[in-house]
Amino acid sequence: MSVEKMNINVIAAGIGQTNVGELWDVSLRELAAEAILGALKDSGNLKPQVIYVGNMLAGSASRQANLGALIAEDVGMRGVEGVTVEAADASGGAALRMAYLAVLSGAVDAALAVGVEKFTDVIGSESESFISQMLDANFEAAQGLTPLSLAGLLFHRYMHEYSADREAFAGFPEVAHANGATNPYAMYQQPMRIGAYQKRVSKDAWVLNLFDVAPYADGAAAVILTREDVLSRSWEHPLVKVIGSSLVTDALSIHDRPSPLVWDAARLSIERACRGAGVMPKDADFFEYHDATSLHATISLEAAGFASLGKGWTLAKPEIIGLNGKIPVATFGGLKARGHPLGATGVYQAVEAVMQLRGEAGENQVEGAKLGLIQSLGGMASTAVAHVLARQ
Amino acid sequence: MSVEKMNINVIAAGIGQTNVGELWDVSLRELAAEAILGALKDSGNLKPQVIYVGNMLAGSASRQANLGALIAEDVGMRGVEGVTVEAADASGGAALRMAYLAVLSGAVDAALAVGVEKFTDVIGSESESFISQMLDANFEAAQGLTPLSLAGLLFHRYMHEYSADREAFAGFPEVAHANGATNPYAMYQQPMRIGAYQKRVSKDAWVLNLFDVAPYADGAAAVILTREDVLSRSWEHPLVKVIGSSLVTDALSIHDRPSPLVWDAARLSIERACRGAGVMPKDADFFEYHDATSLHATISLEAAGFASLGKGWTLAKPEIIGLNGKIPVATFGGLKARGHPLGATGVYQAVEAVMQLRGEAGENQVEGAKLGLIQSLGGMASTAVAHVLARQ
Repeated sequence: MSVEKMNINVIAAGIGQTNVGELWDVSLRELAAEAILGALKDSGNLKPQVIYVGNMLAGSASRQANLGALIAEDVGMRGVEGVTVEAADASGGAALRMAYLAVLSGAVDAALAVGVEKFTDVIGSESESFISQMLDANFEAAQGLTPLSLAGLLFHRYMHEYSADREAFAGFPEVAHANGATNPYAMYQQPMRIGAYQKRVSKDAWVLNLFDVAPYADGAAAVILTREDVLSRSWEHPLVKVIGSSLVTDALSIHDRPSPLVWDAARLSIERACRGAGVMPKDADFFEYHDATSLHATISLEAAGFASLGKGWTLAKPEIIGLNGKIPVATFGGLKARGHPLGATGVYQAVEAVMQLRGEAGENQVEGAKLGLIQSLGGMASTAVAHVLARQ
Repeated sequence: MSVEKMNINVIAAGIGQTNVGELWDVSLRELAAEAILGALKDSGNLKPQVIYVGNMLAGSASRQANLGALIAEDVGMRGVEGVTVEAADASGGAALRMAYLAVLSGAVDAALAVGVEKFTDVIGSESESFISQMLDANFEAAQGLTPLSLAGLLFHRYMHEYSADREAFAGFPEVAHANGATNPYAMYQQPMRIGAYQKRVSKDAWVLNLFDVAPYADGAAAVILTREDVLSRSWEHPLVKVIGSSLVTDALSIHDRPSPLVWDAARLSIERACRGAGVMPKDADFFEYHDATSLHATISLEAAGFASLGKGWTLAKPEIIGLNGKIPVATFGGLKARGHPLGATGVYQAVEAVMQLRGEAGENQVEGAKLGLIQSLGGMASTAVAHVLARQ
């Protein structure tokens, strides 16, 4: 029996999110609660029987385990099933995947995925170093590599391998910031100044510059998945279904892969999610990609099949990836401008996709959006999670 | 649609485990690999499409996130779906629950749950303090409470409330050590000396003494769940099914509960797992309980309905809870003598239950065991996971 035969339609019925940023005066539990209460209200007060918490750093940074129990209690859902799901900065996508499987299993009527990260104002002052947990501790982090320095090395290699035009990459953050400018939840709500990218081609992480790198941040987002028959009659949003879902891993260490610039898990997760949904990536009206760095952006576009190997950067133009382009990306600012709250990011993507497909995206609306593709990556796509959402 | 109607029989088809102890010369990935390779072999070389990793401390203690990708690669399963599931020291039970749901969903043919914890020889020297992550960081750990000191306080309260006989609790570790003595994987493979408990009624954690407390440890255990139609013909073990499963949370902070000595999640998880299985707890031929401390042992017996409130300790006698007793517990030593490798413990319980039900438990065999009940707790039962396993 495959998932497609089960005839359970999984509906994304409730969404909620908090501002993204350095939220010094808000705690992890407050962030999660704000997003969840928003999603519960938006869902017409569904009562999820399970909470999957996407989070990467609460143990290290806040010395807090067992977020399932903590958060369930805090939002008045004491007793529901609740666990933390972790896959580095793909944790949010992984939590969404677990919620999808739970609804599909028939074991629950409604499942809530909340991604939450509290990165600032944490116990100890080493939050930056915690980020390196997404690499191989023994073979990468132990050598002093961080995700950013590794991305810088790979970016350098990418430029060499494919003779890419360094200046062309400016299009990625330009589009992200243009979209973030009209997203009230975004960390950076201003467009990039003309020429800013070129001025900053200093080597913040060897070749990568400030604008090539998404900011780690605090934030929380929540999505409630359910079946159509469970929805309240008074619930009046356009129906958005999750029609494809896939989670794939790859070797954690870059040195264990056939090529450091071909991210198999990123490709396979999209292929499988689309195959499950019976669509092609090119059918998507937008692509919420995981633009943790400009390297991630270009490789993601290649992995999804929007560009051939070594050519992802050629799409980095507003007329192609902007809101009115052929394949809009980062429609609410992406990781670069909305911000990258690590374990929450994958759920933000889902929230934003639902807003697009409902036609509730305001100034960020992709006109007539009917099919959305979202992808959450952990590290250098050691974990890749893809979902396909569709408006009925 | 409820889970019971789906007619998928979930089989526990492969088991593996490592020694439990202070394993200074073995890494987290080596531990996980040993358990998984054992389970794969035992399963007749099934090919699970998903790995759920039950782990509590790798982020904090080993600075390693994304264990799903790390471990899948290390055991030759690159590319499979893999995430970490965390619920404090119930993480192993939670990973088993996720594997159960995945098989039940029909999305995968076989799912592997591995619990792994590397507690010694970690980055930094604060591993003891990491344990407090299972409490509420803001309201409990911030006051200096540790799980052990909190258990000590609650034990004191228990003694007062119920006028329990302090000496009677000796039966819990006595039974655990008697069973651990013949378990080659156990951390402590010797029976307790007569009178040892009484001699140690010093106040290691206020009222709790050394023998009341399970040792935190390193270790890994793995279980592969699948459907009957997927099993290889050459696979020749007696068939063990997972017929009930439940995960329930409670308020993380003890002060938020109606009573600090009544653990609702512990009770509810057993009630629901047994109801799903169509059995009563008293039908069980053994009960692998979460004896993190003698307090946990006595409250667990009450929560499962084997004793009334305040009377769990009256069962602490070899003739009742020993291998030939009415309700054998900790049949391979339990947390106390096998050891408590935190996020791995819940999977050890499953491995041990399968050995019992197959009749492969050797000197630890509960004669004629047909039905087993296992329960994994996070902290003070902030998370409780129960499973019912049955021999066909």
